[in-house]
Amino acid sequence: MALALSLGRRGMGLCWPNPAVGCVVVQGGRIVGRGWTQPGGRPHAETVALAQAGAQAKGATAYVTLEPCSHQGKTPPCAQALIEAGISRVVAAIEDSDPRVSGQGFEQLRRSGIDVRTGVMAEQAARDHAGFFLRTEQGRPLVTLKLASSFDGRIATSTGHSQWITGPEARRSVHAMRARHDAVMVGAGTARADDPSLTVRDLGVAQQPVRVVISRHLDLPLLSQLARTAKDVPLWLCHGPGADIERLKAWEGLGAKLLPCAVRGTQVDAADILQQLGSAGLTRVFCEGGGALAASLLAADLVDELIGFTAGLGIGADGLPMIGTLGLTRLEQALRYQLIETRQVGQDVEHRWTRSLR
Amino acid sequence: MALALSLGRRGMGLCWPNPAVGCVVVQGGRIVGRGWTQPGGRPHAETVALAQAGAQAKGATAYVTLEPCSHQGKTPPCAQALIEAGISRVVAAIEDSDPRVSGQGFEQLRRSGIDVRTGVMAEQAARDHAGFFLRTEQGRPLVTLKLASSFDGRIATSTGHSQWITGPEARRSVHAMRARHDAVMVGAGTARADDPSLTVRDLGVAQQPVRVVISRHLDLPLLSQLARTAKDVPLWLCHGPGADIERLKAWEGLGAKLLPCAVRGTQVDAADILQQLGSAGLTRVFCEGGGALAASLLAADLVDELIGFTAGLGIGADGLPMIGTLGLTRLEQALRYQLIETRQVGQDVEHRWTRSLR
Repeated sequence: MALALSLGRRGMGLCWPNPAVGCVVVQGGRIVGRGWTQPGGRPHAETVALAQAGAQAKGATAYVTLEPCSHQGKTPPCAQALIEAGISRVVAAIEDSDPRVSGQGFEQLRRSGIDVRTGVMAEQAARDHAGFFLRTEQGRPLVTLKLASSFDGRIATSTGHSQWITGPEARRSVHAMRARHDAVMVGAGTARADDPSLTVRDLGVAQQPVRVVISRHLDLPLLSQLARTAKDVPLWLCHGPGADIERLKAWEGLGAKLLPCAVRGTQVDAADILQQLGSAGLTRVFCEGGGALAASLLAADLVDELIGFTAGLGIGADGLPMIGTLGLTRLEQALRYQLIETRQVGQDVEHRWTRSLR
Repeated sequence: MALALSLGRRGMGLCWPNPAVGCVVVQGGRIVGRGWTQPGGRPHAETVALAQAGAQAKGATAYVTLEPCSHQGKTPPCAQALIEAGISRVVAAIEDSDPRVSGQGFEQLRRSGIDVRTGVMAEQAARDHAGFFLRTEQGRPLVTLKLASSFDGRIATSTGHSQWITGPEARRSVHAMRARHDAVMVGAGTARADDPSLTVRDLGVAQQPVRVVISRHLDLPLLSQLARTAKDVPLWLCHGPGADIERLKAWEGLGAKLLPCAVRGTQVDAADILQQLGSAGLTRVFCEGGGALAASLLAADLVDELIGFTAGLGIGADGLPMIGTLGLTRLEQALRYQLIETRQVGQDVEHRWTRSLR
């Protein structure tokens, strides 16, 4: 199952809105098939692994990281494929929460006399499929919030100088993280200040994540990296209802996809942004700030994973804060995240946190 | 030598203004004496180890973490004691930079026919004796700046709520750090806001570090933990020239020691604070904030070690910043610290940094 999970992760960021599933077929103690959900979501992991196993699938055991689908989609259901291949035992990590599948995949397998066991490495599988489950259950993608800052939590000097606070190793690690998400998201302030391209570089990825920028008024420079590349790499802009129609047209002309969202207070509503992104198919979103967007996601309790990169320099209280105003008075009002890991990356500290189970 | 260094560290925080030296005497492959500088600074490590070795010191090798002293102080010079004990070989980690010793200790040993080798584990010894060397060479103690903050570098909410951002394990670790320093230092704002006692608790220490509070106007509450305990645990107050005479008298009456310092801009001058503390004998100072004092130490390039404890919660830009205003415009103007280690402590991240060699 550990191998199946690891294979499944290869599809992360590439197969949305489908889950990134892994599958291993074992016959007589020997691995005869490996598969993972392919870019674009098809073929599914089971189909790939079964094809590789061929005739050796007869009487074999299939390890799958998610309950095999039971409904006819664009491809025939995987449960059916496992039955037809003659698999005699299926070991699954976790049940699918998609109401079209939930339990029915297992039921279909059992009815055909296949021995089914589930719950193997379920915790890890729940983590790997968290984005898919969140979209199915709450309509929104998983959100990883990554913020790289100075020792004292600043993301730029008072004059906006921010390149580079962290070192090349940390930045490379960020590119690898981007690649495991369906989309990279930033606020308008960051897009204006840094003129980022938000692509995955130097890692040889076949498919770039969607770039998402949140801008209430769509007041983003039309001469920017994002504008220049909008035809080649998907660029989605989440804007408020009052955005200027000329700007809307200009961005559409450049190839951007426009997602109108509700406004809450003075900002685009974080919950609605994620509902829109979920409806558009995203299961895993990697948010890289800035401080205002980070604050609105945290305030709405919409951050599932928190990643910090801390560099060994102090910028001081006049620098740009990594998280905007939250209006807390007592510490109990803040959400506590649980530390997963801390490690040295180049000359910086990487620390990863996950939302506590509450 | 590793053992000698480790023994030497036992004296840290207890033997200022003397260096915390360790000594191991080895006779025929067997350890016959161990010693470290005793609380108060006497007897010295060599004296303790030689006393333990007794007659077995004859012809033995002595490992010492610092060049043995050659001048007559309150005790006879250690070089002389080694000669008289009949030691035939001395292995030292590093030369003393005290002009009364520098090289002369080794010279005295060699003149008596003792085989002397130095530079063994010199880097570690330089780190362990850094406070002693800084005081000898620059007149100031080593400064460790420790700041415990939220994920986004805040040390309290906007209303000043700060207990507790980090968990009990991190706080316990801080008490152990305090114990290895000669003094614990905070700014007046922290003293007023937190009413701390600044003592080492639950670790069974025999001698508490000096408590140092920086307050330009000495406007500290006379009904506070610090005031209440000033007779039992040393309390030193660094104040500006304009401090109210009644307050000066009141604090003196409570048992505090007053150190008048120069003022720079609106704050007590960080460099002068450290010169005063060095003159008073301190070799290692542990500063625990707040933001204003941290900023003035960093701005004056007076922080030798930087320790962060980062907790998994966001407080937001309206919270209290961990480092005050530094007035930087470009990142190049900030000092870069080198990461020594990062590790998980309870639910928090501890990261330790050292001043880069520039």
